Amino acid sequence: MLVTSQLSDSNDKISPTNSNKNTYIPDSESADRVTDSRDGNLIIKRHSTMSTTSGQVIRCRAAVAWEPGEPLSIQDVEVAPPKEHEVRIKMVATGVCHTDWEYLYESGKGMKFRPFPLVLGHEAAGIVESIGPEVTNFSPGDKVIPLFLPQCWECERCRSPKTNHCRKNWANTQMGVLADGTSRISCKSQQLYQFLGVSSFCQYTVVPDTSLAKIRSDAPLDKVCLLGCSVSTGYGAAVNTGKVEKDSTCAVFGLGAVGLAAVMGCQVAGARSIIGVDINPDKFEKAKFFGATECINPSDHNKPIQEVLVEKTCGGVDYALECVGSPAIMNAALESTAEAWGTCVIAGWSETESMNVMVEKILMGRTLKGTYFGGWKSVRDVPKLVDDYMNKKLKLDEFITHSLPLNEINVAFDLLKSGKSIRTVINLWD
Amino acid sequence: MLVTSQLSDSNDKISPTNSNKNTYIPDSESADRVTDSRDGNLIIKRHSTMSTTSGQVIRCRAAVAWEPGEPLSIQDVEVAPPKEHEVRIKMVATGVCHTDWEYLYESGKGMKFRPFPLVLGHEAAGIVESIGPEVTNFSPGDKVIPLFLPQCWECERCRSPKTNHCRKNWANTQMGVLADGTSRISCKSQQLYQFLGVSSFCQYTVVPDTSLAKIRSDAPLDKVCLLGCSVSTGYGAAVNTGKVEKDSTCAVFGLGAVGLAAVMGCQVAGARSIIGVDINPDKFEKAKFFGATECINPSDHNKPIQEVLVEKTCGGVDYALECVGSPAIMNAALESTAEAWGTCVIAGWSETESMNVMVEKILMGRTLKGTYFGGWKSVRDVPKLVDDYMNKKLKLDEFITHSLPLNEINVAFDLLKSGKSIRTVINLWD
Repeated sequence: MLVTSQLSDSNDKISPTNSNKNTYIPDSESADRVTDSRDGNLIIKRHSTMSTTSGQVIRCRAAVAWEPGEPLSIQDVEVAPPKEHEVRIKMVATGVCHTDWEYLYESGKGMKFRPFPLVLGHEAAGIVESIGPEVTNFSPGDKVIPLFLPQCWECERCRSPKTNHCRKNWANTQMGVLADGTSRISCKSQQLYQFLGVSSFCQYTVVPDTSLAKIRSDAPLDKVCLLGCSVSTGYGAAVNTGKVEKDSTCAVFGLGAVGLAAVMGCQVAGARSIIGVDINPDKFEKAKFFGATECINPSDHNKPIQEVLVEKTCGGVDYALECVGSPAIMNAALESTAEAWGTCVIAGWSETESMNVMVEKILMGRTLKGTYFGGWKSVRDVPKLVDDYMNKKLKLDEFITHSLPLNEINVAFDLLKSGKSIRTVINLWD
Repeated sequence: MLVTSQLSDSNDKISPTNSNKNTYIPDSESADRVTDSRDGNLIIKRHSTMSTTSGQVIRCRAAVAWEPGEPLSIQDVEVAPPKEHEVRIKMVATGVCHTDWEYLYESGKGMKFRPFPLVLGHEAAGIVESIGPEVTNFSPGDKVIPLFLPQCWECERCRSPKTNHCRKNWANTQMGVLADGTSRISCKSQQLYQFLGVSSFCQYTVVPDTSLAKIRSDAPLDKVCLLGCSVSTGYGAAVNTGKVEKDSTCAVFGLGAVGLAAVMGCQVAGARSIIGVDINPDKFEKAKFFGATECINPSDHNKPIQEVLVEKTCGGVDYALECVGSPAIMNAALESTAEAWGTCVIAGWSETESMNVMVEKILMGRTLKGTYFGGWKSVRDVPKLVDDYMNKKLKLDEFITHSLPLNEINVAFDLLKSGKSIRTVINLWD
């Protein structure tokens, strides 16, 4: 099998560094960065059809999680060509999400155990490099957003308007492999599992063609990558799952990227009052930018935050959106909603924990719901969300507080955990 | 104040037994039993306007709960005339509900503490005896169903189509008193609290005019009394709160009166599959009569009932209705629903307990809701439910397994707890 090396700057031809005698030197390769996030200037880089690498193993760089609790390690990895109904993507930009951090540092705690070593990253955008057999909806050069939630269009769930929970390849995806039970990424001859079937902390990856959204060609990938997870999740939690109504009152718990997107969703839905809740007051300014009418720090009060909110709103909010992933905060969110019609939407992630729900809170007319990827039908709706961004209905740029190269990805985790960033976008070819 | 004695058969004039010198002997009084539940024959009894007792204290009989955990005691009690915006009702028939039993025998455990002594009973039907000042919607002789859930038509909740949780007089009602902070029932000069503002285990009671539904004059009170709680709750849990859809799959946990009514609701909604779940197989025949397509006894399986149901339905039911009031069963109900769109409605009552909800169950697309009085706007909808019964859309007769006189009310509790009855109706004047 041919091996194409992509280890250095993608705009330069490079010499292969491995010993495989079928090594192939690609004609050209380019990163795509349409706008510079620092000054908004248009930057257009060279763009090949990328067909020359088709069918070959590509050698490139990835941040590898060798074992739980250890920092990521930048490694040379090999990415196999796509198999049937698979697409190989050149990753351009990826967000660094709290869920990535949790799988690395809390595997087996708040999260179920998943096999290591793996390549994390699931909120990204890139360009189709090549397609496998039977792929009809994508061509090399297409701009795409890989999806941890597929949409096969064929199953009972895809045919129902009530859900976006397509289960195509689900069990394999959760175990970090593709449909044939293996990953396409390896390092030192060892298989690296693909996190949620995506693995965007790698310069190339392979995903099923049902886990990929084709987006418009003028979309800046280092911005719209956020639609691969956080912004879609939070925004959809408000507008799809919660169905926040005009003139309603809302509280958003946790003002990270998901929470800020939920705030934005409440605003787009026309909520009258949007209360941001976070123990980090540094987030309040940005929350107000996205639409919060008020922000509250639970640490400033000597009673539970739900009591503060119930008092402040004379009975509770119409909608509470939990964007943290903590069962205690989920309870606070539920109990901060109004009797009779309050709806609490859980957008924060937790796989192994339980909420302690007072039955009476439910009996008195509250509804508890969860959202997964914001209720969006992924393949169908992500391109529309990109359109909404391009048409300025949806904000994305303001979520991005930091941009870093791949080899500084552990810094992105530090920024995330210390509350200093909202989103760090990793430019995979810097 | 005048005192009217009503201690013996209501069709006979009786002599007053108390020493009040203003004692009044009413002209006539009648119980109303339009149909005989045993053979369905029409029985028409004498019916006075009852205006002769207006303004007087009425002496009659009641089952008094003197203290928690002790059987009810049949006592002579005095029922004061209605005050402003209150209506005094001659009770004709009352159901004996599990909630009555729980307040007596589990006060302070599964239920919040409420003051004793009290008169239980909240699922009843009767005839207006007299009205207080400012009452415009009722006249003596009107057939009525007293309501533990009011509908004032004026508050924000009453104006909203999203809820039936009117809070008129709420705090007082929960404490067993009317709007002025006192009860209208007393015994041996001691105030008897009015359970949920109703107290139907008494031959007369007084309720607010916003807690009373006027029903058609041809309705048999010993049947439609069940619309005061159990049947409305279970039926509405399915059709209003769950919004059970045609061709859906349902599971109903607990096949008492509320559960059987939920089964009936699922059937009326057109559910394809209705699985009744109960550890008492004696309920299965009746469940099938009301529409269950299948019944399961969890004791027959050596794994959790939710796993049995998920396997049997290839992924879980669309709707689960919990009609027991046990947090463990609420969890089983939630976990028996399908990922992606499953809805669990809690209809069983518990005031002090918590459910341990696996967050992932919610995140994967399930919805948890509660119902209170089946989501019906009480004053508006109960008369419609009576119409539905009279038009044979709704079954009521088949819920009634036993009829007993008031002085055998403790037997009704025994029948309830031993699982031998679905509903015992107490005929208050037998």
